[in-house]
Amino acid sequence: MRGIFNNEYFGRNSMTYRIGIDLGGTKIIGAIFDEKHKKLASIKKNTKGFQGPEVTIKRIVDLIYSLLKTSHLSVKAISSIGFGVPSSVDHLSGKMLTAPNLGWKDVNLKVAIEKEFGIFTYVENDVNAGTYGEYVMTLKKKYEHVVGIFFGTGIGGGLIINGQLFHGARGMAGEIGHMVLKPNGLLCGCGNKGCFETVASKSGILHQMKLDSKKKGNQFLKKVVKKEDALVVKSSDLKKALELGDPYITKQVAKMARYMGLGIANIINILNPQAVILGGGVMEGLKDYLWPALLKNLNKNAFPGSLETVEIRVCELGDDAVMIGASLLAEVYRG
Amino acid sequence: MRGIFNNEYFGRNSMTYRIGIDLGGTKIIGAIFDEKHKKLASIKKNTKGFQGPEVTIKRIVDLIYSLLKTSHLSVKAISSIGFGVPSSVDHLSGKMLTAPNLGWKDVNLKVAIEKEFGIFTYVENDVNAGTYGEYVMTLKKKYEHVVGIFFGTGIGGGLIINGQLFHGARGMAGEIGHMVLKPNGLLCGCGNKGCFETVASKSGILHQMKLDSKKKGNQFLKKVVKKEDALVVKSSDLKKALELGDPYITKQVAKMARYMGLGIANIINILNPQAVILGGGVMEGLKDYLWPALLKNLNKNAFPGSLETVEIRVCELGDDAVMIGASLLAEVYRG
Repeated sequence: MRGIFNNEYFGRNSMTYRIGIDLGGTKIIGAIFDEKHKKLASIKKNTKGFQGPEVTIKRIVDLIYSLLKTSHLSVKAISSIGFGVPSSVDHLSGKMLTAPNLGWKDVNLKVAIEKEFGIFTYVENDVNAGTYGEYVMTLKKKYEHVVGIFFGTGIGGGLIINGQLFHGARGMAGEIGHMVLKPNGLLCGCGNKGCFETVASKSGILHQMKLDSKKKGNQFLKKVVKKEDALVVKSSDLKKALELGDPYITKQVAKMARYMGLGIANIINILNPQAVILGGGVMEGLKDYLWPALLKNLNKNAFPGSLETVEIRVCELGDDAVMIGASLLAEVYRG
Repeated sequence: MRGIFNNEYFGRNSMTYRIGIDLGGTKIIGAIFDEKHKKLASIKKNTKGFQGPEVTIKRIVDLIYSLLKTSHLSVKAISSIGFGVPSSVDHLSGKMLTAPNLGWKDVNLKVAIEKEFGIFTYVENDVNAGTYGEYVMTLKKKYEHVVGIFFGTGIGGGLIINGQLFHGARGMAGEIGHMVLKPNGLLCGCGNKGCFETVASKSGILHQMKLDSKKKGNQFLKKVVKKEDALVVKSSDLKKALELGDPYITKQVAKMARYMGLGIANIINILNPQAVILGGGVMEGLKDYLWPALLKNLNKNAFPGSLETVEIRVCELGDDAVMIGASLLAEVYRG
């Protein structure tokens, strides 16, 4: 322990550190950042969410102690802990309301972590945290109204309005994935039909693939992944099929790209943002294949006056966005 | 002239008055309000917009002098003049950018009015002004995040975020009517296809009617309005046909109501507002016929977590909303 460098030995003006944790369905990633956003240490663990919140929270606590140890910092050097979680969140109480990928309901992560460490803790939806992180680190100097859209297994969104994360009535603002784009389309995980998610996310394209494979045999599944269950297909599998020129996947991805362009255009028409940040596994993995059709349909559907002034860009922070955003939001709410 | 009551005779604490003007495609309506939002006088004139902005601005100036005369107030008693205009607006400069219903482009109404009267003048898009007026007068005490959606010849929207009118990057926020709900649907006035406006506004339903009448003869047009051009049909004509049980119109209006529900649900999913205000001629005229199918489809498509906490209500101020909102916004921006 480099005790002499710890915050406890210094006054108000010494360096403080913040912890950001991205709690995912399968992995927990945590990091310590200094005031200049430099990452001092980063640790990854399995989530084991389906063993219940107690098991996962114990794993998070261990991860935080490991982060402190690795970076030679004491608990007192940490000003706040921020979480990005795959859940709807009551951000004021710190309660995770419904986390389908973990199988949790009404888990107050803030209370559990504050009890263990006595450090101010803030819990935010992961997409909101990622949007905020990307915004602060790359766009805050230029813009104050920014939308983040993340294309992965599903589609998530985050809204920055007047330079702040916008929560809406109860933290549900930005559920862009459940904007209906195809009335009476495919069934969505939310129970509705034709959501943006059913036409422009990995789960949507795989759902379509499954239906098609019953009708005409799915060449993609046979040639590339050789798996029976389309739901375990990764973005990289889709990329392989595109590289091999698989005509079915090429067509499906082009359709997905067109719907991406349409959905982004709708958001631009409704909110007139200064920038739209696009991220998520599908966007990062397949960008080169998606981009031309996406941009073409975006240009076709967005209102010219709003289109002229909007910057469309791909997320730069990658996996760090959620951790950085969560840790920055914790500082905002710590006040 | 009740000179003794005029503002010029009193100090800072005496009553001041504000003027709100709703500049429409066919009519100009102006009113003077006191600090308690009481309407002292109201005057209506034809717009004559297609004779050019000089003609209309002259008519507005005359209307303002008439308002002052009728209410026995001098120019000095007026703290600000607010306009709601059928145009995209650069609200900071007061320039009307594109006003299709007037045939105007780049007209600076603020400069013209301030030059004549020396009174601070503010120019806002009419739907934004109407949403703000309705919000302040009926909901401000309860809510800070509210969406206004106005169904008339087209569809307009206004967003209230954190208690303030949200403009977005350049005043285009709230163009809800151009959210695409039916990819490759009917052509919209904006040049795009399948906008909300093409399936849930009067111009949309009449466009559909025109197409259908070519195929199978339009019973509605024959029985009720006896006019060749569907575009002159009013909401009251549609209501008559509904009262008579016209099966074609009943079906079209039910379809429109379903799309209204879907569009409102999308906005709720994206913004998680505390309330949605519905207004406009079509909503006010046909509410009883629209409401059941609208609510059913809204409930089906909105995200349950956001639906639970949102209040859906019909605009209470009617024709006054734009004048009141414009005059209140003028006071906000006067600072």
